[in-house]
Amino acid sequence: MSRNITSQTLQRLPLYLNYLKSLPQEKSSGNISATAVAEALCLNDVQVRKDLASVSSGGRPKVGYVTRKLIDDIEKFLGSGSCDGVIVAGAGNLGRALLAFNGFGDYGLDIVAGFDCDENIIGTMVNGKPVLALSEMDCVCRKNNVHIGIITVPETAAQAVCDVMVKAGITEILNFAPVHLNAPAEVTIQNQNIAISLAMLSRHLI
Amino acid sequence: MSRNITSQTLQRLPLYLNYLKSLPQEKSSGNISATAVAEALCLNDVQVRKDLASVSSGGRPKVGYVTRKLIDDIEKFLGSGSCDGVIVAGAGNLGRALLAFNGFGDYGLDIVAGFDCDENIIGTMVNGKPVLALSEMDCVCRKNNVHIGIITVPETAAQAVCDVMVKAGITEILNFAPVHLNAPAEVTIQNQNIAISLAMLSRHLI
Repeated sequence: MSRNITSQTLQRLPLYLNYLKSLPQEKSSGNISATAVAEALCLNDVQVRKDLASVSSGGRPKVGYVTRKLIDDIEKFLGSGSCDGVIVAGAGNLGRALLAFNGFGDYGLDIVAGFDCDENIIGTMVNGKPVLALSEMDCVCRKNNVHIGIITVPETAAQAVCDVMVKAGITEILNFAPVHLNAPAEVTIQNQNIAISLAMLSRHLI
Repeated sequence: MSRNITSQTLQRLPLYLNYLKSLPQEKSSGNISATAVAEALCLNDVQVRKDLASVSSGGRPKVGYVTRKLIDDIEKFLGSGSCDGVIVAGAGNLGRALLAFNGFGDYGLDIVAGFDCDENIIGTMVNGKPVLALSEMDCVCRKNNVHIGIITVPETAAQAVCDVMVKAGITEILNFAPVHLNAPAEVTIQNQNIAISLAMLSRHLI
């Protein structure tokens, strides 16, 4: 069982989970092979075998996985049950798109709230999530034990917002602002520049 | 000069370009070393040397780069001057955020138009870009020689939109819908699932 999971594997894990959970009772109480999962989902056999082995150590040659155990292992890996809270700073178009996106639950992530400095949107809701004032971030993060933040504010405001996040106890930041952010060494910052993804794609670099 | 450019290098290239272009006349007409660029931008010397060598073959030991030539090479690599058109299918929150984002120009990319099926927003403008009906995509792409498309529609509509894009001559697709898309082999599809980026970050996998 390895922790070297690629984003491609991570993308397929919810597929496997949904399939395994959809199996009828008589099948889900027995064993299942990576080959059977691959066939059912029209995926490559070798790939599925590798994916499953990376999150579960329960596979046995010619026997496969105990289906219940495999479901448990994938769920445990994806963090189902124990949800990690996430906050979004900036409730403009991108921030609102993230607040409205329901795909985080598959990965054990739950957006708790959005934050903005615009008085006109503070107090509103997006997809059942409140948009709060930046001054409330510290309190909300500590109360909900949130350590993950997403920055979608304009680049001119990004460093100030990053500083507020760090003070609020955020240790993982996904940054969409096209600017380099400074933070203490214990804080991980991942820059997500959509223009770069597109540039890589257009130049056939990915 | 190598084509093995990483996204990290790609992220720094506009920094170098802006710095080199900001140099006073007397400096920009001479030579410049990677070390001098690194010092000015507070970046790692080795990294800058590697970045510059990956896009320009003009560097000479103890002499550095002819500044004008280096500017030309970075501009050429980033595609300045010859802009590639891009279309965005889906003018919801995410689509509108992309239409409003001005950072694509740094990478020689230009969003030509957005497309949607909602009659209420067809005909409106976002950041000077028109939101058009899906039925107009074919005509717009062929007229503007556009080969790059971004999908931001809900997952239920993504495959249909992908099919329209392929018919319109799009060969590179950045897909934000959390669904697997089928397209002919000559079409490159890059999936961009923000939940996965966040999941990788929260598990310290990146």
